[in-house]
Formats: sequence, C-alpha cells, structure tokens
Amino acid sequence: MARLKLIVAYDGADFAGWQSQRHGNTIQDQLERAFAAICGETVRVHGAGRTDAGVHALGQCAHADVTRPRIAPERWIGALNRHLPPAIRILRCTRVRPSFHARYSARAKTYRYVLWNGAVLPPFEHKRAWHVAEALDFGAMSGVLKRFEGEHDFAAFSANRGKPAESTVRSITVARLRRAGPRIIFEFTGSGFLYKMVRLIVGLLVQIGRGAVEGDEVRQRLSNSGARTTRTRLVAPAAGLILVRVRY
Amino acid sequence: MARLKLIVAYDGADFAGWQSQRHGNTIQDQLERAFAAICGETVRVHGAGRTDAGVHALGQCAHADVTRPRIAPERWIGALNRHLPPAIRILRCTRVRPSFHARYSARAKTYRYVLWNGAVLPPFEHKRAWHVAEALDFGAMSGVLKRFEGEHDFAAFSANRGKPAESTVRSITVARLRRAGPRIIFEFTGSGFLYKMVRLIVGLLVQIGRGAVEGDEVRQRLSNSGARTTRTRLVAPAAGLILVRVRY
Repeated sequence: MARLKLIVAYDGADFAGWQSQRHGNTIQDQLERAFAAICGETVRVHGAGRTDAGVHALGQCAHADVTRPRIAPERWIGALNRHLPPAIRILRCTRVRPSFHARYSARAKTYRYVLWNGAVLPPFEHKRAWHVAEALDFGAMSGVLKRFEGEHDFAAFSANRGKPAESTVRSITVARLRRAGPRIIFEFTGSGFLYKMVRLIVGLLVQIGRGAVEGDEVRQRLSNSGARTTRTRLVAPAAGLILVRVRY
Repeated sequence: MARLKLIVAYDGADFAGWQSQRHGNTIQDQLERAFAAICGETVRVHGAGRTDAGVHALGQCAHADVTRPRIAPERWIGALNRHLPPAIRILRCTRVRPSFHARYSARAKTYRYVLWNGAVLPPFEHKRAWHVAEALDFGAMSGVLKRFEGEHDFAAFSANRGKPAESTVRSITVARLRRAGPRIIFEFTGSGFLYKMVRLIVGLLVQIGRGAVEGDEVRQRLSNSGARTTRTRLVAPAAGLILVRVRY
C-alpha cells in the first residue's frame, strides 16, 4: 500500500463540483474512475476542499491509497491523465507518509477570485470570471480589504449547510486585491474557509465598490459575533473562483 | 443605409469556423442570425478573413449594411451581444464609409500562435494552445524566424484550395517569437496570408525546434519559387491560432 499525494488542476465549468455524487459528473468521480480503470479496483480519492460546481482549481490537492507501491509516483501522472478528460489534469504526484491527509493535514489554502470589470466580457473569460459591467470604486474595495485579515467570526460570510454547532471562526492571513486591465483579482489565504465564504466576501466587496453598501459594513458583519446579517447578501458567482494552492 | 464596421472576438473551439455553411454552426452564421433577429431582415456580414474551425479571434473585423442608419453604432454592440452566444462578442462598432470593405480594405493582419511546451497541458489551455510535450530548441526556432520576414513565395506554406492560378507571393512584415513560462508565442503580421500559412510556418518551426528538420529548410522552401515541397509538412493544430487584429 502506498499513499499518493496529487496536485490537480481543473476547469470546473462543465463539472458538478468536486464531491462525488450519485448521478453527478464531479471531479472526484472522474479521478476515482481513472484510478479504477488503471488499478482494476475501487480507489477512494480525498480532496483538500470541496469546490462547488463551476469553481476551478490550479492546485487542488488530493490523496489516494494504491495497492501498487512499486509504480513510481511520477508514472501515475501520465497514467491518470490518459484516463481523465482534458479539463482535469494531474500536475504532480508524490508518495507521502500514511498519516498525510489532503484535508486534515492542510495548513493553508489560497483562493483567487477573478472579476471582469468592463463593458463586454471577452469570450476567453466566459465561465472564468464574474462580469461586472458597471464602474467599481477600486479604492473603496481595497480600503476595506485588510479588515478581513486576522481571526474573525465569519458567520455572516458563510452559507448554512445545516451544521449550526460548528465554529464559524476562521483566520485569513492574507487578503489581496489588484487590477490588471479590466480584471480585478482578489486573493485570500487562510487556514480554512467556510462554505461560500470567499464568494460572500467578494460579493460584499462588489456591493461596496458599487456604492450600494458602506465600507463600515465589513466591520459590522465581522464583529456581529455569529449573528447572521439581515441585509441581502450577494454571492459572487462560482465561475470566478479558483483554488490556487494548498499548503501543508 | 449605413455600413457598420465590427470588431469581433470569439472562442472558436465550438464553431465550424468563420464562413457560413449550409448546416454549419459558424461565426458568420451566428452574426447574421443576430442581425436578422434585430432587423427582421437578412443582413450579410463580411469578414476580413475566414478563420478555420477551432481558430480564435481577439479582433476579427467585419462589415455589414443596415437599413436603420439612425441607430447609434455603439448601440449595436449591446443589441448584437444579447443575440450572440457568450463565445462570440462584439467589442466595437463604428459607422464607416460605404466604400469600406472588411476584406478588401484590409492592409495588414496579425496572427498569434500559442504553443504549450510542458509535460502536462493545463485545463485552461485546452483548445487554446498546441501541446508539445517534448523539449524544443528555442534558439534554433528563433534563429530562423526572421527569414520569413519580407516578400516571399509562400507556396510551400499553403494548402491547396483548388486555385492554382492565384499568386502565392505574400509579405510578412513582422515575425516574432517569445517565451512566457512554458508558453511559446509566435506572432506574424503581414499584408495577407495564404490558407493555413501560419499553421504551416509554425509546424515547420516546431520540426526545427525538435531537431527533426534543419534550419536551412526555411530558406529552401521560401526560395523554391512556387514548387511544393515533397517532404512531409506539419500543420500546427487550429486550436493554437488567434487572429489578433486587422489594420486598415
């Protein structure tokens, strides 16, 4: 038995997210099907994070146990890629200690969110960026961005998945924002993220950029110690979100 | 009657090329359908160049005559985009003199060709770059590139379309090549291009980069005054080709 650590990139546009579904075309399903085709047996693949339908990855991380320890880890890259659709690619494969767990051993994740702030969304950006045509106050957005850094109760930035008992306190170590032509690129690094947290943060930032919400709303939502906001929350669409890397 | 000049961008992956076909899903068909939906009558769209199936455009140019001259040109952008799939976008629309012709008035075109020279093709590059996994001698390719500049008989770099009487002399004003990580990006500007000319030039450059063909082959094929080469020619796949701009 050998435990493999995989770095996986995918264009999430045509998949029903990471997590295996009974009738769903998910990334995890595709990976497990590729392993089954190679190994002739069921191999369970564990991901670092469950990305939603339409969300992309440049460096998702996963682990899997295989019963052929003598196959060199690098050889799995080509073998798996031959059985995967071109929208999913194994970039790296290494052998790791049996105690390594893609999800529980993760120390930090970095997400990127890409927004296209121009009149027309170019064809190459379709399903890869959020198209916001109206003018955004970049200064207003960058002015409040740093408030997300540090440890906060992000309850106001999470979508309820029926686990109210779980802590909603998370820590963001780096929150960044830059402009590259009509592109506005957000980047968040943290120890962990709640469900839809990045998309809700970006949604609020865009509301602030539009001038529809005051910048002070960030402080209020973060200090509201767990109580959900009653104001309408904007969830940035999945297409703009990219899981960039997972650190261990 | 007003003549409109359109700048069109498209992701060519899912289209059967530019030119209208009886049962084809082409860019021209899509544009003419959008005009028909808006105008309630047939509007013929003339493109600067007929890109093949799978070829992309950042700045294809087209013209069309409309019978509603009082609609401001800018308003056509939104109107057409509402009737087009997201993979085709009108970027600009201006009114031009009736003698302007997208194809015949064109003075120069710039094509880009993107090659991914790495072990694994990332999902975001799928259908947008040519994946060449093996090592390429960048120096050998850039060393011969400038030989394509100037006026030459490009017969050895054209695919016969049954018009043998037509001149195969063309002029390339700029031939460029650069590396950006695993990406190798070729750029060619010229007054006109023969059918598959860019893809045959890139095909030969890759054969030279692989060491399969001597660099001197470029000179031989260009000096062979119209005679076709008997050696196997490599046509770079359509997916890596982008029509960047048309100058008038």
